[in-house]
Amino acid sequence: MIRFESDYLEGAHPQVLEALVKTNAEQAPGYSEDVYCERAREMIRARFEAPSAAVHFLVGGTQVNAVMIRAILRPHQGVLCAVSGHINAHETGAIEAGGHKVLALPSEDGKITAAAVQAYYDAHWADGSHEHIVQPGMVYISNPTENGTLYTKQELQELYKTCFALGLPLYIDGARLGYGIMAGGDTPAPADYTKYCDAFTIGGTKVGALFGEALVINNHTLAKDFRYLIKQSGGLLAKGRLLGVQFCALMEDDLYFKIAAEADRLALRLRDGFQACGYSMLFESVTNQQYPVLPDALLARLDEKYTYCYWQRVDESHSAVRFCASPFTREEDVDALLADVASLTKNIEAAI
Amino acid sequence: MIRFESDYLEGAHPQVLEALVKTNAEQAPGYSEDVYCERAREMIRARFEAPSAAVHFLVGGTQVNAVMIRAILRPHQGVLCAVSGHINAHETGAIEAGGHKVLALPSEDGKITAAAVQAYYDAHWADGSHEHIVQPGMVYISNPTENGTLYTKQELQELYKTCFALGLPLYIDGARLGYGIMAGGDTPAPADYTKYCDAFTIGGTKVGALFGEALVINNHTLAKDFRYLIKQSGGLLAKGRLLGVQFCALMEDDLYFKIAAEADRLALRLRDGFQACGYSMLFESVTNQQYPVLPDALLARLDEKYTYCYWQRVDESHSAVRFCASPFTREEDVDALLADVASLTKNIEAAI
Amino acid sequence: MIRFESDYLEGAHPQVLEALVKTNAEQAPGYSEDVYCERAREMIRARFEAPSAAVHFLVGGTQVNAVMIRAILRPHQGVLCAVSGHINAHETGAIEAGGHKVLALPSEDGKITAAAVQAYYDAHWADGSHEHIVQPGMVYISNPTENGTLYTKQELQELYKTCFALGLPLYIDGARLGYGIMAGGDTPAPADYTKYCDAFTIGGTKVGALFGEALVINNHTLAKDFRYLIKQSGGLLAKGRLLGVQFCALMEDDLYFKIAAEADRLALRLRDGFQACGYSMLFESVTNQQYPVLPDALLARLDEKYTYCYWQRVDESHSAVRFCASPFTREEDVDALLADVASLTKNIEAAI
Amino acid sequence: MIRFESDYLEGAHPQVLEALVKTNAEQAPGYSEDVYCERAREMIRARFEAPSAAVHFLVGGTQVNAVMIRAILRPHQGVLCAVSGHINAHETGAIEAGGHKVLALPSEDGKITAAAVQAYYDAHWADGSHEHIVQPGMVYISNPTENGTLYTKQELQELYKTCFALGLPLYIDGARLGYGIMAGGDTPAPADYTKYCDAFTIGGTKVGALFGEALVINNHTLAKDFRYLIKQSGGLLAKGRLLGVQFCALMEDDLYFKIAAEADRLALRLRDGFQACGYSMLFESVTNQQYPVLPDALLARLDEKYTYCYWQRVDESHSAVRFCASPFTREEDVDALLADVASLTKNIEAAI
Repeated sequence: MIRFESDYLEGAHPQVLEALVKTNAEQAPGYSEDVYCERAREMIRARFEAPSAAVHFLVGGTQVNAVMIRAILRPHQGVLCAVSGHINAHETGAIEAGGHKVLALPSEDGKITAAAVQAYYDAHWADGSHEHIVQPGMVYISNPTENGTLYTKQELQELYKTCFALGLPLYIDGARLGYGIMAGGDTPAPADYTKYCDAFTIGGTKVGALFGEALVINNHTLAKDFRYLIKQSGGLLAKGRLLGVQFCALMEDDLYFKIAAEADRLALRLRDGFQACGYSMLFESVTNQQYPVLPDALLARLDEKYTYCYWQRVDESHSAVRFCASPFTREEDVDALLADVASLTKNIEAAI
Repeated sequence: MIRFESDYLEGAHPQVLEALVKTNAEQAPGYSEDVYCERAREMIRARFEAPSAAVHFLVGGTQVNAVMIRAILRPHQGVLCAVSGHINAHETGAIEAGGHKVLALPSEDGKITAAAVQAYYDAHWADGSHEHIVQPGMVYISNPTENGTLYTKQELQELYKTCFALGLPLYIDGARLGYGIMAGGDTPAPADYTKYCDAFTIGGTKVGALFGEALVINNHTLAKDFRYLIKQSGGLLAKGRLLGVQFCALMEDDLYFKIAAEADRLALRLRDGFQACGYSMLFESVTNQQYPVLPDALLARLDEKYTYCYWQRVDESHSAVRFCASPFTREEDVDALLADVASLTKNIEAAI
Repeated sequence: MIRFESDYLEGAHPQVLEALVKTNAEQAPGYSEDVYCERAREMIRARFEAPSAAVHFLVGGTQVNAVMIRAILRPHQGVLCAVSGHINAHETGAIEAGGHKVLALPSEDGKITAAAVQAYYDAHWADGSHEHIVQPGMVYISNPTENGTLYTKQELQELYKTCFALGLPLYIDGARLGYGIMAGGDTPAPADYTKYCDAFTIGGTKVGALFGEALVINNHTLAKDFRYLIKQSGGLLAKGRLLGVQFCALMEDDLYFKIAAEADRLALRLRDGFQACGYSMLFESVTNQQYPVLPDALLARLDEKYTYCYWQRVDESHSAVRFCASPFTREEDVDALLADVASLTKNIEAAI
Repeated sequence: MIRFESDYLEGAHPQVLEALVKTNAEQAPGYSEDVYCERAREMIRARFEAPSAAVHFLVGGTQVNAVMIRAILRPHQGVLCAVSGHINAHETGAIEAGGHKVLALPSEDGKITAAAVQAYYDAHWADGSHEHIVQPGMVYISNPTENGTLYTKQELQELYKTCFALGLPLYIDGARLGYGIMAGGDTPAPADYTKYCDAFTIGGTKVGALFGEALVINNHTLAKDFRYLIKQSGGLLAKGRLLGVQFCALMEDDLYFKIAAEADRLALRLRDGFQACGYSMLFESVTNQQYPVLPDALLARLDEKYTYCYWQRVDESHSAVRFCASPFTREEDVDALLADVASLTKNIEAAI
């Protein structure tokens, strides 16, 4: 089987793996207090133009989201996010387990707007019973979103301006940050993440690492005692240098961004190929996740050779599915898939 | 001012107060282990035909909801309820503070259906990623609902049948239970609450008590060690006999139900009076809360003599508001209000 | 039976009850936003010389402790307290249920010292692994303590000075505050509670109210959005005016303090009586709770007419027990008990 | 520097690393649903003679402890453990963050006895106020303990017998399980962990893995829906196969146990060497952690070449410290250290 269902099907990018192998026998203090972690912090600060940001390394995305949100909110506050936001939809209630309500805003494309945040805030404070209602305490977005869509730089600026004015910290889940940054157009650049939010993550797991997310906290108020919180949540890796070594390798010579650019390119080939066969896309994704709407008959045939992620039923005979490009995706596999889609599509049409 | 904004504006029904005064100097063990609590438990078991149910007394509604739900759910489970459900909308995230997500179902009338519960459950278990999603673990309804509407006996039966089949305990928030039971028609009777749910509350605060909610747990599995949970949540009243004395008074000679019936009657007089003046109602309430849609011009004039609860804007010049009848509502105040509404309506119409 | 086991065996002091009866039919807004609560807040501010303190009313002690502590601590912090502290020993883990560890300090007399707090703090920060350990984030004391002992004014000053210097808010659980204030000697006066802590409670339940604790927050930083937290914890009483009315009555003409002084006087009569018969006291209590160490043979005889609270076994034939004086304790019952103790003691001695 | 301060200073055992490298480019489903995890589960079931146990893989020890304990306890329950237990002392309150009190039992050697558990349980249920106290709900031990000591097979049997009789699940934190199993004497064997507890972990991080703990749940009741709980706690690794691959390598040809045996051997050489120089040990450890009590003067000299973990001050001029042997510890480094200790000791003695 050729697998396209997600971007975490393989291990680490060869250069990342090589770095782990090379440093394997070295002795280093535990809990991310080693030289590799320190070097990776410096490289991230330099690349994101964030000379004074706090940088922490955690193992996984649900973990880092839960810790950061728990650090920001007071007990009576909740976190605003799109209804499709990962923390609302796919983390088994990790935020609620930490005591906080996720305040889900309607969203078609996986994004939320400055205006929607402002409106929710205003409605809360205008309500005579607001003390009986969870207070909005921060805003969570993911970029790219769970739909593969992207905030433009201007949208991000506006959102942050509103959040700042309202006293709501803005946190960006960058589980696929690299794929967003390399998507081109009016996309936020690395330094924009330093300027236009209070904290964000640089996802490693889905962009070439074995595992690991770097958390960058721009707002120092939110960084106090942060290692206690990481430890309490079970997120302080004993052999923390594994995270440092990997992020050094990813930041070295912009490997992280090169990996992402290549996967984006292959994903857009997939998109274009599906569209060339006359298929529409569920979301207007410009990143490594693509969501074609396909006939069930076609999917049944593709199942013989390929894997993808089932997303949702669209109508009686069509479904939206997700195909991902990853750091390991090969050009020839994309070729093969698109060739099969084209020929199968003809057969299916002929059969009708 | 004549106040109609809620049903907890006054103290206790005179007979309840008298019972408190009469027993005030008696000595009794604390924490609801006194003879009054025991007697009240027996009276409730008898009246609701629940000879073996566990009965506990707590001070307030948010408290009892939070404790019961926390007792039922495992950490990864959430509680299904209508989007307008009190636990979702007006308890400042008490359920999330206990670690659980509220799984809000769309609802126009404040109710949820057996079919909606079944569909949510089926969708959860059909989702290949269900372990990444909060598992539905129980169902919460309020009866009457926050909109003043009522489940019919048949709706309740169907809902419970579905819940039972799916292994989801059904809990009914009866903050205004009496007003529901006395609303007539095909409304559930006391014994139906024993038959068709796992636990329910008999709200005292809004039906004649100074304060207090009786929690009736029909399903013994859910009752284990329950007093520990009440204590932990700060709900175990030191002078617990206050709750026992009040519920004895309320159950004596069906006082609880008589109070409710009379308030229902006055509320329906309000409804009929508003409708007679040509006003529509936001919800089809048959209980002590009524939600007329009124011209803002009329409300501005009513503000001089009456209070009500602002509910929501309906259009540019109309708002929905809530008028409540309580155990203290007087016929003459209803007369006065309706007379004013009628004459003000004429003036406003004439002015147009 | 004549009951001495606790100070919450009866209802409200007659003047408190009368105030409730008198105001029963009045209409007032809910949730402690009424004129009685406002008046009670002013009376408390005046009496405790705390013109700008925030004052809230909650129903019970476990509830108010849990809310205040949750408001103060960040997730990785714990609360220092004596091992015998109520939050550590008798609240079924309410603090842990809110996510925080209780950091129990050894204590013989129920008190903790400035030196012990300083030492714990220093040891924490000196530990190379302190990020792996719960950080001390505040200090809880009760005054009087659970043993009936009292901090002197000087001890309180020193403790607060240390807490202030270390950045640890000091919270005083005053469930029996009145009994402490009226105990005489070098005891803190009302205004001292305003000066020497960040927040404290004025316990009503055990000093003449039906129920209710006033929470006084001297440190405004800790008071932000506090009503949200109360609501979330199920502590915002719908008919909040019940708390206001009661505290008005208690503050009126110093009733609260007069009640406490009288109970202290009767408790000291008990102490003196027991000592006159040759019995020692487990703790050096100067307040309304007394802990004589008595022969089991004597207790067996007292059981026929009196109740008390069993505390702990002292040796093979002796136990420590608790006798409380309450606002309802009658001089003649104290006379009777002491007479019986004296005569029974003689019989027992004769029998040996 | 030659480092002895812990057993997580290096990367993975070469055979483990090789397995990761070899499988790196393979595609596999995420979240531990791959063939490597399945194979590792089977190998563990076979080696521990637990054919029907549930086996899960998590990244770290604090995480797995928190999840397992949260899965077992109801809200009002706490976990009994030695005061020195990792969950009580060094997990920054992770258990309390999950809502539960750690009920710490006194312990000199890091172990708790069946008798102590029985006594605590009996005292709880004998207390008339037990509903006001956290209920003991399970027992946690670590084996080896944090002191390097070990339960004998008989001690474990007795403890489990008591736990079973009292209805308290017994959970064993095996962060260093291998070092215990290979310590010889009357130590529990692998199959004993299957027979004499409800759940236990097989620590990988400290015994040759890059990271990873296997959780074995013998009691099926506790295993229900467990993957939801892992996901909620942020413990479900996206590239879960990394855990499977590592545990396959560790179980292959008993590598895990061979690694542990060798480190135990070197640690005992350290112990014997220190003792030969006349030094006593703080704890009677028979595993890979050794705690000599050394003169500060000696430590000052050792600091020039070696690292160790400072444990506690013993007297004015002596400290207890921890030296660990790890899967990477070399015989020549042990030789060097012991030679230096011997010669430095002579110098110090001569200097006196």
